[in-house]
Amino acid sequence: MTSEFKRPLILITNDDGADAKGIHVLTELMMQLGEVVVVAPDGPRSAQSNALTVTQPIRFKEIERREGLIRYSCTGTPTDCVKLSLNEILNREPDLLVSGINHGSNSAINVIYSGTMGAVLEGCENGIPSIGFSICNHSLEADFSYFESYVLQIAAETLKNGLPHATCLNVNAPIGEIAGLKVVRQCDGRWTKEFAKRMDPQGRAYFWLTGNFENHEPDAQDTDEWALNNGYVSIVPTKIDLTAYEAMDAINTWNLF
Amino acid sequence: MTSEFKRPLILITNDDGADAKGIHVLTELMMQLGEVVVVAPDGPRSAQSNALTVTQPIRFKEIERREGLIRYSCTGTPTDCVKLSLNEILNREPDLLVSGINHGSNSAINVIYSGTMGAVLEGCENGIPSIGFSICNHSLEADFSYFESYVLQIAAETLKNGLPHATCLNVNAPIGEIAGLKVVRQCDGRWTKEFAKRMDPQGRAYFWLTGNFENHEPDAQDTDEWALNNGYVSIVPTKIDLTAYEAMDAINTWNLF
Repeated sequence: MTSEFKRPLILITNDDGADAKGIHVLTELMMQLGEVVVVAPDGPRSAQSNALTVTQPIRFKEIERREGLIRYSCTGTPTDCVKLSLNEILNREPDLLVSGINHGSNSAINVIYSGTMGAVLEGCENGIPSIGFSICNHSLEADFSYFESYVLQIAAETLKNGLPHATCLNVNAPIGEIAGLKVVRQCDGRWTKEFAKRMDPQGRAYFWLTGNFENHEPDAQDTDEWALNNGYVSIVPTKIDLTAYEAMDAINTWNLF
Repeated sequence: MTSEFKRPLILITNDDGADAKGIHVLTELMMQLGEVVVVAPDGPRSAQSNALTVTQPIRFKEIERREGLIRYSCTGTPTDCVKLSLNEILNREPDLLVSGINHGSNSAINVIYSGTMGAVLEGCENGIPSIGFSICNHSLEADFSYFESYVLQIAAETLKNGLPHATCLNVNAPIGEIAGLKVVRQCDGRWTKEFAKRMDPQGRAYFWLTGNFENHEPDAQDTDEWALNNGYVSIVPTKIDLTAYEAMDAINTWNLF
């Protein structure tokens, strides 16, 4: 594979599983930009955040190989997939990691729950330019075609420019026609009414996760939620340093020392 | 329970499970400060990050009730425990959420994998002053006594002062005698050599997660790793807004618009 040394190496993963429509779309797009290796979970791993598999071992297996593409499935989480790729599967460091295209939004606080973005944060920690792509549509049969040129352009620009240290991208597409792109911040908000209560035949309660997103700043025009609600692709530069630097002085005044 | 209306309500969870030594120590300490409700996983959920249970329902059950304390176990992740507490179990908003005391460090990049800190970020998202406590000792029988006065003081000061919007605390204790406390930042670093490869009797490989932490700034004296390595309790103010504001200008110069 002499071509492997001429073209960028692109690692792809997701949290919807190796067979999801979104990762197939992303794979075909990335093959226009480089050699592609897919290492994706062997089934759905939505909302797995940066979870790691620690109580049992993980495995991977090759599921497809053709010119410019090798695909593997892995028994672990999205973050496990990235770790296993970098440590055991790839023979050189990838030039780009892309995760998705996720069936469902990862805007606002969803970034902290998302398995898609968990994989992206993991790539970022390891110094690899990393991007998560998602659309605001949970359907298994979602149409991704309206988003494809944006995905390709954002990935190409990231390959060309790189990303600042410890920074990755969280890219979401709105529903329907795209008005353009906006570089925006993570919207402040939270989930409410989060459980649907059911009773089993023995009369014991059980709870399904559900809920409504409550936007705490609906009028702010510089957030990902605003961009998506107004037809724009949202690009949130996202960091793995969670330090709240601006809070350090206040805590240093506490009666602790 | 008239006392419930006079004393602060403190919600406790963890990722080592409701029976772990660390959460029992934390519970006894917090009972000095308020009414305590424990809602903790029914078994170990280490490295579950902010993972949510979405493919099956969750349940909870009462496991102990005495003056000033009610304890529940829950079938979900640490983040599920917090969501279920706020939505279904508690009849008023807690004044404080504490998670831990974790058997093992959650310093540096470990914050993004930690179930302990996942619960803390969840409390923070919901506007509750939230603190994660951990010690640099994985032993099930770890001694927590040397850390107790610090835990109590930090919790009391948080109850008194509150925390800035969308900010929580990640508190870790060093091994051995404590020299004092430091308000520090999340150290830059990553894990390497992350898997131990084994072969099953059929000759197929499987992989256990392991690894070494590589500190990218061992000489910096303002990081949590430095504090812990020098005998200090580390307090990292931690935020749920992952936006890399400082990267926005650069990305706005890309050929995307």
